[in-house]
Amino acid sequence: MRFDIVTLFPDFFTSPLSSGLLGKALAKEIATVHLTNPRDFATDKHRRVDDEPYGGGVGMLMKPEPIFAAVESLPVLPRREVILMTPQGQTMNQAMFQELGTNYDQLVVICGHYEGVDERVLHLVTREVSLGDFVLTCGEIPALTLLNGTVRLLPGTVGKEESLKAESFEAGLLDYPHYTRPAVFREWEVPAVLRSGNHAEIDRWRQEQQIQRTRDRRPDLYEKWLKDQEV
Amino acid sequence: MRFDIVTLFPDFFTSPLSSGLLGKALAKEIATVHLTNPRDFATDKHRRVDDEPYGGGVGMLMKPEPIFAAVESLPVLPRREVILMTPQGQTMNQAMFQELGTNYDQLVVICGHYEGVDERVLHLVTREVSLGDFVLTCGEIPALTLLNGTVRLLPGTVGKEESLKAESFEAGLLDYPHYTRPAVFREWEVPAVLRSGNHAEIDRWRQEQQIQRTRDRRPDLYEKWLKDQEV
Repeated sequence: MRFDIVTLFPDFFTSPLSSGLLGKALAKEIATVHLTNPRDFATDKHRRVDDEPYGGGVGMLMKPEPIFAAVESLPVLPRREVILMTPQGQTMNQAMFQELGTNYDQLVVICGHYEGVDERVLHLVTREVSLGDFVLTCGEIPALTLLNGTVRLLPGTVGKEESLKAESFEAGLLDYPHYTRPAVFREWEVPAVLRSGNHAEIDRWRQEQQIQRTRDRRPDLYEKWLKDQEV
Repeated sequence: MRFDIVTLFPDFFTSPLSSGLLGKALAKEIATVHLTNPRDFATDKHRRVDDEPYGGGVGMLMKPEPIFAAVESLPVLPRREVILMTPQGQTMNQAMFQELGTNYDQLVVICGHYEGVDERVLHLVTREVSLGDFVLTCGEIPALTLLNGTVRLLPGTVGKEESLKAESFEAGLLDYPHYTRPAVFREWEVPAVLRSGNHAEIDRWRQEQQIQRTRDRRPDLYEKWLKDQEV
């Protein structure tokens, strides 16, 4: 799977792309990441990529031409999506990562900057995606999140496939509590059931915990899960 | 404002913390970021920070002792929050960034790894925070998001304070479309109203766009905004 990240700050990605499990996945070429800087496609002598907004207002906008030129310079793989990272987009979630990882060969990800991008960039874009209901200084963090969450699901990134299954959101519920050694740490003991060796009991306890946690913390997910159970 | 990030992968942060507007804010010491590695606090000869889960299951968990030791090694500022990044936490949003930036002198941010952390780490933690309804390979990306969104709101990070006001989520609505030069790019023209010079008309157009976009794309935000208007 090929990722093309269109970014004014390619240096941002240096250490995150070589760190941890994502770094290992990229080293194994489970996915490739190509960074393209719109500044390299600015045609005036100052290589300007931003300009003032029409209609007034503070802050600068990313101009359309360098972004079009950057995206149009890229190779085009058969199943391709061009994604703009913007707080106005669809909020990313686990189902989106699964869908992107399954249905596409190439994701072109445009990182916004300054006050935003010229609206006409949407003519290039097939999907607008948001990280959440907040504003950051840059679109690089949302792009990195999308990359990480999608590559994580590709075969070979996570050692044991099972560890992708029994986790948060896969069953529509939050995760259950996890414990490791020591059995007693300070005054806190690992729940006896987890040390019982009774796997039917352990499974029941874990599912109860998942349901209880989701009901307490995320009534929205809980209601959805309840509905899915009825089908 | 002081950030203490407790992470097994401090190298992850090298380039993001020196890039773009966040890099500039840290260079100006609007906030300071300190990285602490639990591995430096592991006491056995292999410096182990992970172990197998009680009750079975795949994947490894972060052991409690190195995390406790790492957090307990840190200075304690008066108004302090200890945050665990976990998909089970409260979803971060603009209001959370504002509250954290206003009410605290120090945020200790613990990044989870592997299948998660031993549940007893919650005895250290004053708040659990989630980036969104998905799973990543690491808690470093959520930690970086929280840092970026919070530092962005501190005085001095964004040049003109006004540019923090007229933006997504501040008024409970999505942002309006932005345009910059050229007036005509390929076959697409900047809307005439924005070039009219009539500021009352421009303001009205922008607010209409905000309301319409929010209603079309985010009925959840739109319903909330409607209710707030009635008060």
